[in-house]
Amino acid sequence: MATLSSTHCRSYSPLPSSSCASSSSSSCSKLGHRQRVSVSSVPKRCLAAKVYCVQSQTSSAGRMQDVGVGAMATTATPIENETPFKKLKDGLLSVPSSVEYNEAVAFDINDKEPAVSITVVGASGDLAKKKIFPALFALYYEDCLPKHFTVYGYARSKMTDAELRNMVSKTLTCRIDKRENCSEKMEQFLKRCFYHSGQYDSQENFAELDKKLKEREGGRVSNRLFYLSIPPNIFIDSVRCASLSASSGNGWTRVIVEKPFGRDSESSAALTKALKQYLEEDQIFRIDHYLGKELVENLSVLRFSNLIFEPLWSRQYIRNVQLIFSEDFGTEGRGGYFDNYGIIRDIMQNHLLQILALFAMETPVSLAGEDIRNEKVKVLRSMRPLQLENVVVGQYKSHIKGGVTYPAYTDDKTVPKDSLTPTFAAAALFIDNARWDGVPFLMKAGKALQTKRAEIRVQFRHVPGNLYNRNFGTDLDQATNELVIRVQPDEAIYLKINNKVPGLGMRLDRSNLNLHYAARYSKEIPDAYERLLLDAIEGERRLFIRSDELDAAWALFTPLLKELEEKKIIPEYYPHGSRGPVGAHYLAARYNVRWGDFGADQ
Amino acid sequence: MATLSSTHCRSYSPLPSSSCASSSSSSCSKLGHRQRVSVSSVPKRCLAAKVYCVQSQTSSAGRMQDVGVGAMATTATPIENETPFKKLKDGLLSVPSSVEYNEAVAFDINDKEPAVSITVVGASGDLAKKKIFPALFALYYEDCLPKHFTVYGYARSKMTDAELRNMVSKTLTCRIDKRENCSEKMEQFLKRCFYHSGQYDSQENFAELDKKLKEREGGRVSNRLFYLSIPPNIFIDSVRCASLSASSGNGWTRVIVEKPFGRDSESSAALTKALKQYLEEDQIFRIDHYLGKELVENLSVLRFSNLIFEPLWSRQYIRNVQLIFSEDFGTEGRGGYFDNYGIIRDIMQNHLLQILALFAMETPVSLAGEDIRNEKVKVLRSMRPLQLENVVVGQYKSHIKGGVTYPAYTDDKTVPKDSLTPTFAAAALFIDNARWDGVPFLMKAGKALQTKRAEIRVQFRHVPGNLYNRNFGTDLDQATNELVIRVQPDEAIYLKINNKVPGLGMRLDRSNLNLHYAARYSKEIPDAYERLLLDAIEGERRLFIRSDELDAAWALFTPLLKELEEKKIIPEYYPHGSRGPVGAHYLAARYNVRWGDFGADQ
Repeated sequence: MATLSSTHCRSYSPLPSSSCASSSSSSCSKLGHRQRVSVSSVPKRCLAAKVYCVQSQTSSAGRMQDVGVGAMATTATPIENETPFKKLKDGLLSVPSSVEYNEAVAFDINDKEPAVSITVVGASGDLAKKKIFPALFALYYEDCLPKHFTVYGYARSKMTDAELRNMVSKTLTCRIDKRENCSEKMEQFLKRCFYHSGQYDSQENFAELDKKLKEREGGRVSNRLFYLSIPPNIFIDSVRCASLSASSGNGWTRVIVEKPFGRDSESSAALTKALKQYLEEDQIFRIDHYLGKELVENLSVLRFSNLIFEPLWSRQYIRNVQLIFSEDFGTEGRGGYFDNYGIIRDIMQNHLLQILALFAMETPVSLAGEDIRNEKVKVLRSMRPLQLENVVVGQYKSHIKGGVTYPAYTDDKTVPKDSLTPTFAAAALFIDNARWDGVPFLMKAGKALQTKRAEIRVQFRHVPGNLYNRNFGTDLDQATNELVIRVQPDEAIYLKINNKVPGLGMRLDRSNLNLHYAARYSKEIPDAYERLLLDAIEGERRLFIRSDELDAAWALFTPLLKELEEKKIIPEYYPHGSRGPVGAHYLAARYNVRWGDFGADQ
Repeated sequence: MATLSSTHCRSYSPLPSSSCASSSSSSCSKLGHRQRVSVSSVPKRCLAAKVYCVQSQTSSAGRMQDVGVGAMATTATPIENETPFKKLKDGLLSVPSSVEYNEAVAFDINDKEPAVSITVVGASGDLAKKKIFPALFALYYEDCLPKHFTVYGYARSKMTDAELRNMVSKTLTCRIDKRENCSEKMEQFLKRCFYHSGQYDSQENFAELDKKLKEREGGRVSNRLFYLSIPPNIFIDSVRCASLSASSGNGWTRVIVEKPFGRDSESSAALTKALKQYLEEDQIFRIDHYLGKELVENLSVLRFSNLIFEPLWSRQYIRNVQLIFSEDFGTEGRGGYFDNYGIIRDIMQNHLLQILALFAMETPVSLAGEDIRNEKVKVLRSMRPLQLENVVVGQYKSHIKGGVTYPAYTDDKTVPKDSLTPTFAAAALFIDNARWDGVPFLMKAGKALQTKRAEIRVQFRHVPGNLYNRNFGTDLDQATNELVIRVQPDEAIYLKINNKVPGLGMRLDRSNLNLHYAARYSKEIPDAYERLLLDAIEGERRLFIRSDELDAAWALFTPLLKELEEKKIIPEYYPHGSRGPVGAHYLAARYNVRWGDFGADQ
């Protein structure tokens, strides 16, 4: 198979405008003069030909500013053709493994690459341990992190650097491929990891962190990324403290925030307003890790680089679109957070809606982050707010199977006994624009279901005047084309087509034109967090959610969520491990849809 | 996977008109009154719900007439739900294996099913041995032959029935599946095979055959199929003798003829005229075995039963279509016949042109044979006759590889040393209608090439305003979608799409959405001859070539063929086992086409 481009970590070249010149409030464009330079702060293989805008002024004091790579980087070095192996070898030789790595020690007068400090706030939490540190290591392992990076864990508990490293080391794996020097790389990575203990609302503690970061940066241009892996009630305090006490003085400062971004339009707006006291919009990286998934990333590629899909992508050929998410486990003792949000806020309003927006948006002007986000906002704003009648909610109940009792949602000790929080929801959404008028977009998300999957299913219309109608029996739905993009598990794309069954007769069946990732690509697919962390470091905002997008998303769901809560709508109970409430079928039937994940030939 | 229809041999139901009411001269429609009855002369599983028109008069004497199933079949029996196994078992019990099978002996007063006699004229030839007898056995094995069938071999050599059976038995295989009773079935089949020795131009010898056939038919309605597996110079004599001396008196008589159907417009017209002295058009079954191939049969299914292809199938989305045939061996001592015809007549004017017509035709009114043949004629008549400048001819020369000398075409002892007969040809064809105006249809066919294959390749246009252009490098042809229908070997359908290579970067590649028959369907694909023989027995003309089609096909090629011969155009010599003359690339380049079978990712 021909490979159309060939660099290692990153080979696309976003337009120069993508990193700084956002159409909303960009500090970079506000502050004036921009220059284009090759980025030299990250390995060249990661960013071949990537061009950034550079802010020649330093940021205003007391306020985090996303000012590009910094003035010191303006002397661009030529891009070398180093092989990954050589790079690796050089790295090993230049860092004696017995000496603690220190940027200050390694300082070289000719090396003007900025330092990048990544602070994981909430370092002892589950997300940090399971996702963030492993993703950072994977990026390091793949030579995708900037040359002068350090990782700081920040949390309340007392811990030494060695203890943090020990904790982190337990979740690092050399899963990407089987290169020999994994444990060496791991050791090198851990040497770049440090810990600082502090309160989330203490400016003083963040000032101590700032001092340590400065030491590590050793006088270089300082770029700082804060990953807030903490509960929503301490978001703002942390942002305030980090901003006032630990933001970069001469480089960029960016903050990754995790959902929940509020629980309705009002609380979300309040959160945004509070964040914007301390951050510019383009410093805020609202993460939706579904946008980092390989097949979601591929959605735009499929759609915009293949002619065959071009005429099909509208109401003229598409009968309905289905966005399906299911988990095969319940809350399992961790329902406390979930119960306050429910499946609609947890999955639909963000993950599924984001995928829908990417699927349905008009062609953007370019692949630059702001162009894509502009189109996503447009499609979200073309949608009707959800109506209660177009939604089915469910909650799993206990179920005994093979002598094992699977608990009900309300059996979870952290969940109130009388909770009406939906663990399942199905909804029909509509986009009132020229492209999608009348096409139902059905969403379905649930916990404690039979299967675990996330997929996009596109059902095409029936063939008009079908010569082969008589070969299909009475159910024409069984004979229509369907495009399935299976996001997880076992990534695949397949297109169901009608085909003649080989033989003397004229039997037809639906067969798949299939692209099964595991069969086609030997390389393991990176975790979504790797992609998103790298994007944040690179200032690529395409996969992060802008505040106007967030507003538009909440505007669609808030009236429904209020009505569900005010009217105390009783969910339809479904057995733990089942296929969910049958109400979902009746909802689909109202719009002439049949759920694709229930077919004999899914 | 769902199967949309479920009967065994045949489950499509051609319209009633398809068997008799051809739009050209049909004896059935000429002779008046028609009735519809269920056919009871073939096993019901083969012909579920198939409806024939029945001619209530017997044929006029001295002339073969295709008069449907015959008056005796009008009392239709209800369709039973017998399983293949039961049918098989009953068959075994009712025919004692030690007694020679004889229709007359087995006659049952209540069994009014017609007899079908299949006479293979030229029974000792290669085609008969390798293809026709094995195909008849496969049909018998699959319970697709009518209940009362007999097979007669007819040739000049002296042979007993036993000798014929011995000869035939050597080429029969139980290849279809691994059922246990294969040798039993083979024995039963061979008992239905007989031999008659006679001259091809002797009415007397055919009259003797007629007598024998009548005996076997035992007073039933007699349907007779003659398969002329003989050289073209004795076609007409045999047809005359069979017609005058051995045609059915009260059922149908059909004749299958093999190419060559002449060698240009004039000789083809003369042959047709001669045939029509003795046969009606709808008694003539001109076989093109490529039309019986599984993936050629599937072409219409793909196109007309899948909505996703509907908007794509025209000049708006298709850049070019390629029809490629290659053999990896030369004439190997059997060049005598070939040298008189050449690759253009042998492959292009029939096989490739037929596929082209099926590919490019407008949607037919129905799937009935005459409707499809009407559309094929239309598209052939919309084509420009081939121009010499749009054709490249080649001939293979000797080549030494690994110490082995592969002979030149003219090294074949049966070929004149100074032969200019093309063993390779490439041509650009054009259809001047609204759907295909300006789209080049490129054909390529050759012997003694590197690979053995037959395939249809559809290259789609470039994506307009492609957002991902920069990911594709300079050669956009490498990035366009392509649909490949691989007819042989290793049947497959695949659609090349651009896809994101999994990983942190944005590399694109072309991957296949793939339907590989061997992986999807466990059953062996029947030989083209099985399908075509069954069709001829059933009176299904869809896959046979009507005389006006043949005329249109010759009209496209005759001027070119004459010019090649008159101007004694020297072929471009290419080494035996190579990829053919480079001239084919220059021809393609003239029309902005790149041959798809030369890509890195075929």
